[in-house]
Amino acid sequence: MARKKEFPLAQVYGLLEPGPVVLVTTARAGRMNVMPMSWHTMMEFAPPLVGCVISNQNHTFELLRATGECVLNLPTVELAKPLVACGNASGQSVDKFKTFGLTPVAGEVVKAPLIAECYASLECKVVDRKLVAKYNFFILEVVKAWIDPRQKRPQTIHHQGEGVFFVPGRTIKLPSPKTSFRTT
Amino acid sequence: MARKKEFPLAQVYGLLEPGPVVLVTTARAGRMNVMPMSWHTMMEFAPPLVGCVISNQNHTFELLRATGECVLNLPTVELAKPLVACGNASGQSVDKFKTFGLTPVAGEVVKAPLIAECYASLECKVVDRKLVAKYNFFILEVVKAWIDPRQKRPQTIHHQGEGVFFVPGRTIKLPSPKTSFRTT
Repeated sequence: MARKKEFPLAQVYGLLEPGPVVLVTTARAGRMNVMPMSWHTMMEFAPPLVGCVISNQNHTFELLRATGECVLNLPTVELAKPLVACGNASGQSVDKFKTFGLTPVAGEVVKAPLIAECYASLECKVVDRKLVAKYNFFILEVVKAWIDPRQKRPQTIHHQGEGVFFVPGRTIKLPSPKTSFRTT
Repeated sequence: MARKKEFPLAQVYGLLEPGPVVLVTTARAGRMNVMPMSWHTMMEFAPPLVGCVISNQNHTFELLRATGECVLNLPTVELAKPLVACGNASGQSVDKFKTFGLTPVAGEVVKAPLIAECYASLECKVVDRKLVAKYNFFILEVVKAWIDPRQKRPQTIHHQGEGVFFVPGRTIKLPSPKTSFRTT
């Protein structure tokens, strides 16, 4: 956290919209868990709402349903191996933080931990559960956002299926007559 | 369409999960429209379900609500300029296909057109409208998928906000003990 600064909530969409894999952390009764997830979408700019699918086969599902809180941590490519390892282990039997070398750090609003090694962390609360039963789809509100300002071009991780990922390549700037290109 | 082959529905998640901007096409009463969109997420592997936010300020919202059909077309970087132009014009006053040089091609299942210049096209039907009123959130089922098999490393477009985009860079392969790294 020492390296992370508060990040404006209205700019959070720019972190999640390009589709990075995130590490979802949860905590309950002194136990923490972490899992990779990339089935997420922005749903509103401000306050930032994020919809995401977390399978009811995952330990995280129960923790999220019980506590209504999580943190979405954005890893860069240096964390690719622990990220995949986290996806292939269950928090029911393994302390993934210890096993895969991730450092939990206390957040400010929610009880779920931030991951020190991730360049950004979004503290979230579940605000809508209407589609949880049918689709395992939670709607989260980002209530506090943190970023490492030294990361100018974070090499986020984007999953293409079957263990294949890419990181960002060339950047393109296309000035728009509107103040922002709002893809909604 | 001459260049596009049918694509297995169970593999569609690998196209959308890494977060590309898509061009959403709709059609009604002989008129077509197209808009860029990147607030989308996979919600199920097979049949593939996709959740997406389409603002009720957009012409596409009305067309999608009325017809229940659309096509998600995946552009590559060559289409970045028309893509941004599509996001800054309204289909109510402009024929975006003609104006921005996009070629509509008839689909097989839905009436909305495929875009010839896009490397993949997903014919979709709206299957759930429960969150449309509150969040402009539609759940689509992909009923037919098409891809240009000659595109081995499509340079998809990923929006980071304020007219800044990136295309995929380096690829990483991380073999997994599971048959697939399922990020849900």
